[in-house]
Amino acid sequence: MRIRELIITPVAFPDPPLLNSSGVHEPLALRTVLRLVLDDDAIVGLGESSGDVRHLDLLRLVAPRLVGHDVFATTALRTVVDAAVNDALPAPTARERTAVHSAIEVACLDAQGRLTGRPVYDLLGGAVRTTIPYSAYLFYKWADHPDGAYDGTPDPWGEALDADGMVTQARRMIDEYGFGSLKLKGGVFPPDVEIATARALRAAFPDHPVRLDPNGAWTVPTAKRVAAELEGVLEYLEDPVPGVDGMAEVAAGTDLPLATNMCVVAFDQVPRAVRLDAVQVILSDHHYWGGLRQTVALGTLCDTFGIGLSMHSNSHLGISLAAMTHAAAATPELTYACDTHYPWNGAYDVVRPGVLNFVDGALEVPTGPGLGVELDLDALERRHEDYVRSGRRVRDDTGYLRRVRPDYDPTLPRW
Amino acid sequence: MRIRELIITPVAFPDPPLLNSSGVHEPLALRTVLRLVLDDDAIVGLGESSGDVRHLDLLRLVAPRLVGHDVFATTALRTVVDAAVNDALPAPTARERTAVHSAIEVACLDAQGRLTGRPVYDLLGGAVRTTIPYSAYLFYKWADHPDGAYDGTPDPWGEALDADGMVTQARRMIDEYGFGSLKLKGGVFPPDVEIATARALRAAFPDHPVRLDPNGAWTVPTAKRVAAELEGVLEYLEDPVPGVDGMAEVAAGTDLPLATNMCVVAFDQVPRAVRLDAVQVILSDHHYWGGLRQTVALGTLCDTFGIGLSMHSNSHLGISLAAMTHAAAATPELTYACDTHYPWNGAYDVVRPGVLNFVDGALEVPTGPGLGVELDLDALERRHEDYVRSGRRVRDDTGYLRRVRPDYDPTLPRW
Ligand SMILES: [Mg+2]
Ligand SMILES: [Mg+2]
Repeated sequence: MRIRELIITPVAFPDPPLLNSSGVHEPLALRTVLRLVLDDDAIVGLGESSGDVRHLDLLRLVAPRLVGHDVFATTALRTVVDAAVNDALPAPTARERTAVHSAIEVACLDAQGRLTGRPVYDLLGGAVRTTIPYSAYLFYKWADHPDGAYDGTPDPWGEALDADGMVTQARRMIDEYGFGSLKLKGGVFPPDVEIATARALRAAFPDHPVRLDPNGAWTVPTAKRVAAELEGVLEYLEDPVPGVDGMAEVAAGTDLPLATNMCVVAFDQVPRAVRLDAVQVILSDHHYWGGLRQTVALGTLCDTFGIGLSMHSNSHLGISLAAMTHAAAATPELTYACDTHYPWNGAYDVVRPGVLNFVDGALEVPTGPGLGVELDLDALERRHEDYVRSGRRVRDDTGYLRRVRPDYDPTLPRW
Repeated sequence: MRIRELIITPVAFPDPPLLNSSGVHEPLALRTVLRLVLDDDAIVGLGESSGDVRHLDLLRLVAPRLVGHDVFATTALRTVVDAAVNDALPAPTARERTAVHSAIEVACLDAQGRLTGRPVYDLLGGAVRTTIPYSAYLFYKWADHPDGAYDGTPDPWGEALDADGMVTQARRMIDEYGFGSLKLKGGVFPPDVEIATARALRAAFPDHPVRLDPNGAWTVPTAKRVAAELEGVLEYLEDPVPGVDGMAEVAAGTDLPLATNMCVVAFDQVPRAVRLDAVQVILSDHHYWGGLRQTVALGTLCDTFGIGLSMHSNSHLGISLAAMTHAAAATPELTYACDTHYPWNGAYDVVRPGVLNFVDGALEVPTGPGLGVELDLDALERRHEDYVRSGRRVRDDTGYLRRVRPDYDPTLPRW
């Protein structure tokens, strides 16, 4: 079955003021929704990926070159993508090309599943689990955006700028979604504040593993000190310092597993990380590791080298969540709860409700054909209109924070 | 769709007296043919694996435990296999368990392809090539078996016990099948004879890459000397010495890539080989790497660590050949011609003729549903009768050679 068309729809959706090491989330988050139409009009494969304009432009460059290709030949499409973006300026990096291929692969797999009447996980070797545990993704945050939320809705989560605020946020996440583990986004406050927050979470929820991710905000000496203080408190410490060499230095001095979705984000970065024993957990992300099949292959590779496997998340909607869930279902090596931003943005989803409901902090793996989710075309239209109207084209957490703090310096490491 | 039954049929088929480092091929080679019957009787998935009785016994232990399992859940079947063989004596090794799972996975994938109307390669990410180049598998051989061939057919290949004989054999292989590369099975004669044979092949067929595989017959000093002599002659040198440490020693002193299907035969052996830089090419084999999906994953892993990928063969029939061909079609990293014994045994195949024909040394990838081959039930019955009648249960190249040379010592390394 051949590909007739790839319909690319950038969307924007409200996002709370979530703080991180490079700034704060803007009132709108951006994503791209893909609809891969086959020669048989009845079949449309869904995909979702980054909304940044550079990725969008590359997708638009590739789209016409997909026409006529077999929707099952996803590995061969790597070459098509590479050839199609050859003339883009500046020349795309391998990472950028892989992200484009990743997005298309998911849409192809959704279409394959719909064609064959099988859930996507069955195209990946079948499900090894029927529910996928996710973690509560906790953020330091402001009570509101400086100019209010994009759609005027009052922020229901309130402020979280210290340990107490974070415990309140975590309790609500657990009450509403049943999450069984906690991920704290750090890199926002001086390390001692974040250590106190991690300890407070551990004390308030002794049965909930806690992970902390300052996104490379610390120097090696700082990271060593924090690691020493948080041994026994954290499940793992994620990207305490920027770069694989620094990670190796920190890892050498702590029993705390170090995780990353920053210094090892592609296969070609694995050998050096292995050689240096720099990371003990890799956070997979099908959006940039090459799609769902390569995410499963990453599981084999991690198992081979004794590296743990978890899953990364960016702000996303339900198509990505469904794809993450299928990948997790088919990857036996994935033994940590997956990260997800969905509680922050799911109300603005473009997929029809009913499938992606957290029960006890986990999603039941959708069993319908393909990804098992259906597009809400009205919602897609609204989100696309917001995208057009907003004029937003890139994510700029730093620039947004500078509106409030003009002297904000995003240089990392910061402490 | 659920599994109803796994039908296990051991078969035997005539094999020429092919010499190797552990002895000589017996008049009958053994294999096991699998038929995986689904709840819908119309669908039967085919598989083929080792005929040794130990593997056969493990398959028989596992077969009843497969009943009722989803045929798409091949990854989850690893656990089923592990649990099923728990009580076998002696306790199965991880390698033995993986071989059992591998065999079943292929039969499942064939069934999946038939169910969905897709060739198996489409279930593995699609074909990156439509024809798969194979190499001419050259063997030193006797003119005949001591007591004649099992079925009385005169051996059409004649003797090959020196360079001239091997060039004749190679010319015939090339004439009949069009092979574009040559694999010489060594470890039979003192290294200087095999060096001379390799040189003669290179001289007679300057456009045909030559690989040499003595199956660990040499010491490290011998291997170093041979490697030095054959740099520029060979495409790669396969398993010159036993064990990964010896391989590393040899590799350190030569520009010739070293290949293996002996010291790295499972994922857990890769890290040490990588650390030692012991092998430059891994020969995949879906029969023991965990099936077709793991063979594709091995490609990703090899690419990640800059290791080349080729494909190993044991004496086999057409179901295995079809499976090898689908795996090769779906594995972009596989850039060497694959090994195959098929010219030596294909006349006794249990699949119906018409699909597996070498043209210019390559097979067109079957495009029918599943593996794209159909069982010849009469041929299967004959091969099974031969198996029963022969009383043969294990491969014993050493014992067979000892009938002729009672003092034969199979200890390796030999030179
Ligand atoms: Mg992170
Ligand atoms: Mg070999």
